Amino acid sequence: MEGSERPGKAERRRREIVESAAALFDAKGYYGTNLDEVAAAVGLRKASLYHYFRGKEEILNSIHEDFLGWSLAREEARRKEDLSPEQHLLESVADMLEVISKRPGHIRTFIEHYRELDPAAQKTIAVKRDHYSGLIEEVIVAGMDAGTFRRMDSKMALLALFGAVNWAYQWLPQDPDADPRRVAYALWETLMRGIQAPAVKQPTPGS
Amino acid sequence: MEGSERPGKAERRRREIVESAAALFDAKGYYGTNLDEVAAAVGLRKASLYHYFRGKEEILNSIHEDFLGWSLAREEARRKEDLSPEQHLLESVADMLEVISKRPGHIRTFIEHYRELDPAAQKTIAVKRDHYSGLIEEVIVAGMDAGTFRRMDSKMALLALFGAVNWAYQWLPQDPDADPRRVAYALWETLMRGIQAPAVKQPTPGS
Repeated sequence: MEGSERPGKAERRRREIVESAAALFDAKGYYGTNLDEVAAAVGLRKASLYHYFRGKEEILNSIHEDFLGWSLAREEARRKEDLSPEQHLLESVADMLEVISKRPGHIRTFIEHYRELDPAAQKTIAVKRDHYSGLIEEVIVAGMDAGTFRRMDSKMALLALFGAVNWAYQWLPQDPDADPRRVAYALWETLMRGIQAPAVKQPTPGS
Repeated sequence: MEGSERPGKAERRRREIVESAAALFDAKGYYGTNLDEVAAAVGLRKASLYHYFRGKEEILNSIHEDFLGWSLAREEARRKEDLSPEQHLLESVADMLEVISKRPGHIRTFIEHYRELDPAAQKTIAVKRDHYSGLIEEVIVAGMDAGTFRRMDSKMALLALFGAVNWAYQWLPQDPDADPRRVAYALWETLMRGIQAPAVKQPTPGS
Protein backbone atom coordinates (compact mmCIF):
# COMPACT_ATOMS: atom_id res chain seq x y z
CA MET A 1 0.00 0.00 0.00
CA GLU A 2 3.05 2.24 0.13
CA GLY A 3 3.84 4.72 -2.64
CA SER A 4 5.83 3.62 -5.65
CA GLU A 5 9.06 5.52 -4.91
CA ARG A 6 11.82 3.48 -3.33
CA PRO A 7 12.28 4.87 0.12
CA GLY A 8 15.69 5.58 1.66
CA LYS A 9 16.84 3.91 4.86
CA ALA A 10 15.62 6.68 7.15
CA GLU A 11 12.26 6.67 5.44
CA ARG A 12 11.99 2.89 5.76
CA ARG A 13 12.76 3.19 9.44
CA ARG A 14 10.13 5.91 9.86
CA ARG A 15 7.57 3.66 8.22
CA GLU A 16 8.53 0.76 10.45
CA ILE A 17 8.01 2.95 13.51
CA VAL A 18 4.59 4.09 12.27
CA GLU A 19 3.51 0.50 11.53
CA SER A 20 4.57 -0.70 14.96
CA ALA A 21 2.96 2.24 16.69
CA ALA A 22 -0.31 1.66 14.83
CA ALA A 23 -0.31 -2.01 15.89
CA LEU A 24 0.37 -1.03 19.51
CA PHE A 25 -2.33 1.68 19.46
CA ASP A 26 -4.75 -0.93 18.15
CA ALA A 27 -3.84 -3.48 20.83
CA LYS A 28 -3.41 -1.18 23.84
CA GLY A 29 -4.98 2.11 22.80
CA TYR A 30 -3.23 5.38 21.95
CA TYR A 31 -3.09 6.49 25.57
CA GLY A 32 -2.10 3.06 26.80
CA THR A 33 1.02 3.01 24.61
CA ASN A 34 4.22 4.86 25.47
CA LEU A 35 7.20 5.68 23.30
CA ASP A 36 9.43 3.17 25.10
CA GLU A 37 7.17 0.41 23.83
CA VAL A 38 7.13 1.81 20.30
CA ALA A 39 10.94 2.05 20.35
CA ALA A 40 11.30 -1.48 21.74
CA ALA A 41 8.98 -2.87 19.05
CA VAL A 42 11.39 -1.69 16.34
CA GLY A 43 14.57 -2.49 18.29
CA LEU A 44 15.48 1.11 19.07
CA ARG A 45 16.11 2.96 22.28
CA LYS A 46 13.74 5.84 22.93
CA ALA A 47 16.53 8.38 22.44
CA SER A 48 17.12 7.03 18.91
CA LEU A 49 13.42 7.13 18.11
CA TYR A 50 13.57 10.90 18.58
CA HIS A 51 15.77 11.06 15.46
CA TYR A 52 12.67 10.12 13.51
CA PHE A 53 9.77 11.59 15.43
CA ARG A 54 9.46 14.42 17.91
CA GLY A 55 6.92 12.46 19.91
CA LYS A 56 3.80 10.33 19.98
CA GLU A 57 1.64 13.05 18.47
CA GLU A 58 3.85 13.23 15.39
CA ILE A 59 3.49 9.47 14.95
CA LEU A 60 -0.27 9.86 15.37
CA ASN A 61 -0.21 12.46 12.62
CA SER A 62 1.79 10.12 10.34
CA ILE A 63 -0.83 7.40 10.80
CA HIS A 64 -3.54 9.81 9.68
CA GLU A 65 -1.42 11.02 6.76
CA ASP A 66 -0.55 7.47 5.66
CA PHE A 67 -4.12 6.29 5.81
CA LEU A 68 -5.44 9.21 3.78
CA GLY A 69 -2.42 9.05 1.48
CA TRP A 70 -3.18 5.44 0.48
CA SER A 71 -6.88 6.12 0.17
CA LEU A 72 -6.41 9.20 -1.99
CA ALA A 73 -3.70 7.61 -4.17
CA ARG A 74 -5.96 4.65 -4.93
CA GLU A 75 -8.96 6.86 -5.64
CA GLU A 76 -6.98 9.18 -7.89
CA ALA A 77 -5.62 6.17 -9.82
CA ARG A 78 -9.08 4.66 -10.16
CA ARG A 79 -10.45 7.83 -11.67
CA LYS A 80 -8.12 7.31 -14.61
CA GLU A 81 -9.47 3.81 -15.27
CA ASP A 82 -12.50 3.43 -17.46
CA LEU A 83 -14.95 2.14 -14.87
CA SER A 84 -18.70 2.51 -14.60
CA PRO A 85 -19.82 4.32 -11.43
CA GLU A 86 -21.03 0.97 -10.08
CA GLN A 87 -17.72 -0.83 -10.69
CA HIS A 88 -15.83 2.17 -9.38
CA LEU A 89 -17.80 2.34 -6.13
CA LEU A 90 -17.49 -1.41 -5.56
CA GLU A 91 -13.71 -1.18 -5.95
CA SER A 92 -13.60 1.75 -3.54
CA VAL A 93 -15.57 -0.25 -0.96
CA ALA A 94 -13.27 -3.26 -1.47
CA ASP A 95 -10.24 -1.00 -0.94
CA MET A 96 -11.65 0.41 2.28
CA LEU A 97 -12.30 -3.08 3.63
CA GLU A 98 -8.84 -4.26 2.62
CA VAL A 99 -7.25 -1.43 4.60
CA ILE A 100 -9.54 -2.15 7.58
CA SER A 101 -8.54 -5.79 7.44
CA LYS A 102 -4.80 -5.30 6.89
CA ARG A 103 -4.19 -2.11 8.84
CA PRO A 104 -6.60 -2.26 11.78
CA GLY A 105 -4.35 -0.01 13.85
CA HIS A 106 -4.34 2.70 11.20
CA ILE A 107 -8.09 2.71 10.78
CA ARG A 108 -8.89 2.60 14.51
CA THR A 109 -6.48 5.45 15.13
CA PHE A 110 -7.92 7.41 12.23
CA ILE A 111 -11.49 6.97 13.48
CA GLU A 112 -10.93 7.36 17.22
CA HIS A 113 -7.98 9.72 17.62
CA TYR A 114 -8.52 12.63 15.30
CA ARG A 115 -9.19 14.86 18.28
CA GLU A 116 -5.77 14.12 19.73
CA LEU A 117 -4.03 15.75 16.74
CA ASP A 118 -2.94 19.33 17.27
CA PRO A 119 -5.26 21.94 15.72
CA ALA A 120 -3.07 22.61 12.67
CA ALA A 121 -2.78 18.89 11.90
CA GLN A 122 -6.54 18.47 12.37
CA LYS A 123 -7.10 21.12 9.74
CA THR A 124 -4.76 19.48 7.21
CA ILE A 125 -6.28 16.06 7.80
CA ALA A 126 -9.84 17.40 7.59
CA VAL A 127 -9.09 18.94 4.17
CA LYS A 128 -7.76 15.63 2.83
CA ARG A 129 -10.59 13.64 4.42
CA ASP A 130 -13.17 15.96 2.87
CA HIS A 131 -11.38 15.67 -0.47
CA TYR A 132 -11.61 11.88 -0.27
CA SER A 133 -15.31 12.04 0.73
CA GLY A 134 -15.91 14.40 -2.18
CA LEU A 135 -14.32 11.95 -4.64
CA ILE A 136 -16.60 9.14 -3.45
CA GLU A 137 -19.65 11.39 -3.51
CA GLU A 138 -18.80 12.30 -7.13
CA VAL A 139 -19.01 8.61 -8.03
CA ILE A 140 -22.45 8.38 -6.41
CA VAL A 141 -23.61 11.46 -8.30
CA ALA A 142 -22.17 10.06 -11.57
CA GLY A 143 -24.16 6.87 -10.97
CA MET A 144 -27.34 8.88 -10.40
CA ASP A 145 -26.69 10.83 -13.60
CA ALA A 146 -26.10 7.57 -15.49
CA GLY A 147 -29.36 6.16 -14.13
CA THR A 148 -27.72 3.17 -12.47
CA PHE A 149 -28.17 4.69 -9.01
CA ARG A 150 -31.46 5.99 -7.67
CA ARG A 151 -32.06 9.73 -7.47
CA MET A 152 -31.42 10.38 -3.80
CA ASP A 153 -29.68 12.58 -1.27
CA SER A 154 -26.09 11.78 -2.29
CA LYS A 155 -24.70 13.08 0.99
CA MET A 156 -26.92 10.74 3.01
CA ALA A 157 -26.07 7.82 0.71
CA LEU A 158 -22.38 8.61 1.24
CA LEU A 159 -22.78 8.69 5.02
CA ALA A 160 -24.71 5.41 4.99
CA LEU A 161 -22.04 3.79 2.81
CA PHE A 162 -19.10 5.10 4.86
CA GLY A 163 -20.88 3.99 8.02
CA ALA A 164 -21.67 0.49 6.82
CA VAL A 165 -18.10 0.04 5.55
CA ASN A 166 -16.07 1.83 8.22
CA TRP A 167 -18.01 0.09 10.99
CA ALA A 168 -16.21 -3.07 9.90
CA TYR A 169 -13.24 -1.81 11.94
CA GLN A 170 -15.27 -3.03 14.93
CA TRP A 171 -15.68 -6.60 13.69
CA LEU A 172 -13.64 -7.47 10.59
CA PRO A 173 -10.14 -7.54 12.13
CA GLN A 174 -11.49 -9.78 14.93
CA ASP A 175 -12.53 -12.41 12.39
CA PRO A 176 -9.34 -14.04 11.10
CA ASP A 177 -11.24 -16.13 8.54
CA ALA A 178 -12.99 -13.18 6.91
CA ASP A 179 -11.92 -12.40 3.37
CA PRO A 180 -12.21 -8.62 2.96
CA ARG A 181 -13.24 -8.90 -0.69
CA ARG A 182 -16.07 -11.31 0.10
CA VAL A 183 -17.18 -9.01 2.90
CA ALA A 184 -17.06 -6.15 0.39
CA TYR A 185 -19.37 -8.04 -1.96
CA ALA A 186 -21.80 -8.91 0.83
CA LEU A 187 -21.97 -5.34 2.17
CA TRP A 188 -22.17 -4.06 -1.38
CA GLU A 189 -25.17 -6.28 -2.11
CA THR A 190 -26.99 -4.94 0.96
CA LEU A 191 -26.11 -1.34 0.15
CA MET A 192 -26.99 -1.58 -3.52
CA ARG A 193 -30.18 -3.61 -3.36
CA GLY A 194 -31.37 -2.46 0.05
CA ILE A 195 -33.09 -4.47 2.74
CA GLN A 196 -36.62 -4.08 1.44
CA ALA A 197 -38.08 -6.63 -0.95
CA PRO A 198 -38.84 -5.19 -4.40
CA ALA A 199 -42.18 -3.39 -4.32
CA VAL A 200 -43.56 -4.91 -7.51
CA LYS A 201 -44.18 -8.46 -6.48
CA GLN A 202 -46.60 -10.92 -7.98
CA PRO A 203 -48.40 -12.85 -5.26
CA THR A 204 -47.66 -16.54 -5.60
CA PRO A 205 -50.86 -18.57 -5.88
CA GLY A 206 -51.49 -20.63 -2.77
CA SER A 207 -49.11 -18.66 -0.57
CA MET B 1 -34.62 7.83 28.80
CA GLU B 2 -34.26 6.74 32.41
CA GLY B 3 -36.30 3.90 33.87
CA SER B 4 -39.73 4.52 35.31
CA GLU B 5 -38.92 4.03 39.01
CA ARG B 6 -38.42 7.19 41.00
CA PRO B 7 -34.79 7.24 41.99
CA GLY B 8 -33.62 8.14 45.50
CA LYS B 9 -31.28 11.02 46.14
CA ALA B 10 -28.10 8.95 46.00
CA GLU B 11 -29.22 7.37 42.76
CA ARG B 12 -30.03 10.79 41.27
CA ARG B 13 -26.57 11.98 42.23
CA ARG B 14 -24.98 8.89 40.68
CA ARG B 15 -26.82 9.59 37.44
CA GLU B 16 -25.74 13.21 37.48
CA ILE B 17 -22.12 12.11 37.85
CA VAL B 18 -22.43 9.66 34.96
CA GLU B 19 -24.05 12.30 32.72
CA SER B 20 -21.33 14.85 33.47
CA ALA B 21 -18.59 12.30 33.00
CA ALA B 22 -20.02 11.22 29.63
CA ALA B 23 -20.14 14.85 28.47
CA LEU B 24 -16.54 15.38 29.60
CA PHE B 25 -15.36 12.14 27.95
CA ASP B 26 -17.02 13.31 24.74
CA ALA B 27 -15.40 16.75 24.86
CA LYS B 28 -11.94 15.84 26.15
CA GLY B 29 -11.70 12.08 25.72
CA TYR B 30 -11.77 9.40 28.41
CA TYR B 31 -8.04 9.64 29.07
CA GLY B 32 -8.07 13.42 28.92
CA THR B 33 -10.60 13.68 31.75
CA ASN B 34 -9.71 13.27 35.40
CA LEU B 35 -11.96 12.69 38.40
CA ASP B 36 -11.36 16.21 39.75
CA GLU B 37 -13.04 17.58 36.64
CA VAL B 38 -15.94 15.15 36.93
CA ALA B 39 -16.39 16.08 40.61
CA ALA B 40 -16.19 19.82 39.84
CA ALA B 41 -18.80 19.47 37.08
CA VAL B 42 -21.35 18.23 39.61
CA GLY B 43 -20.22 20.54 42.43
CA LEU B 44 -18.54 17.86 44.51
CA ARG B 45 -15.05 17.45 45.85
CA LYS B 46 -13.22 14.37 44.60
CA ALA B 47 -13.33 12.78 48.05
CA SER B 48 -17.14 13.00 48.02
CA LEU B 49 -17.32 11.53 44.53
CA TYR B 50 -15.78 8.36 45.94
CA HIS B 51 -18.99 7.83 47.93
CA TYR B 52 -20.65 7.08 44.62
CA PHE B 53 -17.95 5.54 42.43
CA ARG B 54 -14.70 3.77 43.20
CA GLY B 55 -13.05 5.42 40.23
CA LYS B 56 -13.16 6.42 36.60
CA GLU B 57 -13.44 2.82 35.40
CA GLU B 58 -16.62 2.29 37.40
CA ILE B 59 -18.12 5.41 35.81
CA LEU B 60 -17.05 4.06 32.42
CA ASN B 61 -18.86 0.85 33.21
CA SER B 62 -22.01 2.77 34.23
CA ILE B 63 -22.01 4.58 30.88
CA HIS B 64 -21.94 1.22 29.08
CA GLU B 65 -24.64 -0.19 31.36
CA ASP B 66 -26.88 2.88 30.97
CA PHE B 67 -26.57 2.92 27.21
CA LEU B 68 -27.40 -0.76 26.86
CA GLY B 69 -30.07 -0.48 29.56
CA TRP B 70 -31.97 2.20 27.60
CA SER B 71 -31.53 0.37 24.32
CA LEU B 72 -32.71 -2.96 25.71
CA ALA B 73 -35.63 -1.45 27.65
CA ARG B 74 -36.89 0.26 24.50
CA GLU B 75 -36.48 -2.85 22.38
CA GLU B 76 -38.19 -5.07 24.92
CA ALA B 77 -41.11 -2.61 25.15
CA ARG B 78 -41.37 -2.40 21.36
CA ARG B 79 -41.64 -6.17 21.05
CA LYS B 80 -44.92 -5.96 22.96
CA GLU B 81 -46.39 -3.48 20.49
CA ASP B 82 -48.11 -4.77 17.42
CA LEU B 83 -45.71 -3.48 14.79
CA SER B 84 -44.79 -4.84 11.40
CA PRO B 85 -41.09 -5.73 11.06
CA GLU B 86 -40.66 -2.67 8.87
CA GLN B 87 -42.27 -0.27 11.37
CA HIS B 88 -40.40 -1.94 14.21
CA LEU B 89 -37.00 -1.60 12.54
CA LEU B 90 -37.63 2.02 11.61
CA GLU B 91 -38.49 2.83 15.23
CA SER B 92 -35.34 1.04 16.41
CA VAL B 93 -33.24 3.09 13.98
CA ALA B 94 -34.96 6.29 15.14
CA ASP B 95 -34.21 5.37 18.76
CA MET B 96 -30.55 4.76 18.02
CA LEU B 97 -30.24 8.13 16.31
CA GLU B 98 -32.05 9.88 19.14
CA VAL B 99 -29.57 8.49 21.65
CA ILE B 100 -26.63 9.43 19.37
CA SER B 101 -28.01 12.95 19.10
CA LYS B 102 -28.93 13.45 22.77
CA ARG B 103 -26.21 11.41 24.48
CA PRO B 104 -23.15 11.81 22.28
CA GLY B 105 -20.85 11.16 25.24
CA HIS B 106 -22.52 7.87 26.03
CA ILE B 107 -22.38 6.59 22.48
CA ARG B 108 -18.78 7.67 21.84
CA THR B 109 -17.69 6.07 25.09
CA PHE B 110 -19.61 2.91 24.25
CA ILE B 111 -18.05 2.65 20.80
CA GLU B 112 -14.50 3.71 21.61
CA HIS B 113 -13.84 2.62 25.18
CA TYR B 114 -15.08 -0.91 25.55
CA ARG B 115 -11.48 -2.11 25.79
CA GLU B 116 -10.85 0.05 28.83
CA LEU B 117 -13.43 -1.87 30.88
CA ASP B 118 -12.01 -4.57 33.11
CA PRO B 119 -12.35 -8.12 31.72
CA ALA B 120 -15.35 -9.08 33.90
CA ALA B 121 -17.23 -5.91 32.91
CA GLN B 122 -16.36 -6.52 29.24
CA LYS B 123 -17.97 -9.93 29.48
CA THR B 124 -21.18 -8.60 31.05
CA ILE B 125 -21.43 -5.81 28.50
CA ALA B 126 -20.70 -8.14 25.58
CA VAL B 127 -23.57 -10.43 26.66
CA LYS B 128 -26.03 -7.51 26.77
CA ARG B 129 -24.72 -6.06 23.50
CA ASP B 130 -25.10 -9.42 21.77
CA HIS B 131 -28.59 -9.73 23.23
CA TYR B 132 -29.51 -6.35 21.76
CA SER B 133 -27.99 -7.27 18.38
CA GLY B 134 -29.94 -10.52 18.47
CA LEU B 135 -33.21 -8.67 19.06
CA ILE B 136 -32.62 -6.45 16.03
CA GLU B 137 -31.54 -9.39 13.89
CA GLU B 138 -34.80 -11.16 14.85
CA VAL B 139 -36.74 -8.21 13.39
CA ILE B 140 -34.78 -8.49 10.14
CA VAL B 141 -35.46 -12.23 9.98
CA ALA B 142 -39.17 -11.63 10.76
CA GLY B 143 -39.27 -9.18 7.85
CA MET B 144 -37.68 -11.72 5.54
CA ASP B 145 -40.19 -14.35 6.67
CA ALA B 146 -43.04 -11.89 6.08
CA GLY B 147 -41.72 -11.16 2.58
CA THR B 148 -41.29 -7.43 3.20
CA PHE B 149 -37.49 -7.77 3.41
CA ARG B 150 -35.36 -9.47 0.80
CA ARG B 151 -33.95 -12.95 1.46
CA MET B 152 -30.40 -12.11 2.45
CA ASP B 153 -27.61 -12.70 4.93
CA SER B 154 -29.34 -11.26 8.00
CA LYS B 155 -26.06 -10.91 9.88
CA MET B 156 -24.55 -8.82 7.08
CA ALA B 157 -27.70 -6.72 6.83
CA LEU B 158 -27.52 -6.15 10.59
CA LEU B 159 -23.86 -5.08 10.39
CA ALA B 160 -24.59 -2.74 7.48
CA LEU B 161 -27.53 -1.22 9.37
CA PHE B 162 -25.63 -0.82 12.66
CA GLY B 163 -22.72 0.67 10.74
CA ALA B 164 -24.80 3.18 8.79
CA VAL B 165 -26.64 4.23 11.96
CA ASN B 166 -23.88 4.13 14.57
CA TRP B 167 -21.51 6.00 12.28
CA ALA B 168 -23.76 9.02 12.88
CA TYR B 169 -21.88 9.46 16.18
CA GLN B 170 -19.14 10.95 13.98
CA TRP B 171 -21.29 13.60 12.35
CA LEU B 172 -24.78 13.96 13.87
CA PRO B 173 -23.86 15.60 17.21
CA GLN B 174 -21.71 18.13 15.31
CA ASP B 175 -24.74 19.31 13.36
CA PRO B 176 -26.91 21.31 15.78
CA ASP B 177 -29.69 21.75 13.20
CA ALA B 178 -30.07 18.05 12.44
CA ASP B 179 -33.34 16.49 13.57
CA PRO B 180 -32.54 12.87 14.53
CA ARG B 181 -35.93 11.62 13.32
CA ARG B 182 -35.48 13.19 9.89
CA VAL B 183 -31.99 11.72 9.72
CA ALA B 184 -33.52 8.37 10.68
CA TYR B 185 -35.97 8.58 7.79
CA ALA B 186 -33.24 9.56 5.32
CA LEU B 187 -30.88 6.76 6.38
CA TRP B 188 -33.83 4.38 6.47
CA GLU B 189 -34.73 5.22 2.89
CA THR B 190 -31.16 4.50 1.74
CA LEU B 191 -30.98 1.26 3.73
CA MET B 192 -34.38 0.00 2.66
CA ARG B 193 -34.38 0.91 -1.00
CA GLY B 194 -30.65 0.66 -1.60
CA ILE B 195 -28.46 2.83 -3.79
CA GLN B 196 -29.06 0.98 -7.05
CA ALA B 197 -31.86 2.06 -9.35
CA PRO B 198 -34.59 -0.57 -9.75
CA ALA B 199 -33.56 -3.11 -12.40
CA VAL B 200 -36.85 -3.09 -14.26
CA LYS B 201 -36.90 0.32 -15.83
CA GLN B 202 -38.78 1.47 -18.90
CA PRO B 203 -36.61 3.72 -21.04
CA THR B 204 -38.24 7.12 -21.38
CA PRO B 205 -38.71 8.03 -25.04
CA GLY B 206 -36.41 10.84 -26.09
CA SER B 207 -34.09 10.56 -23.07
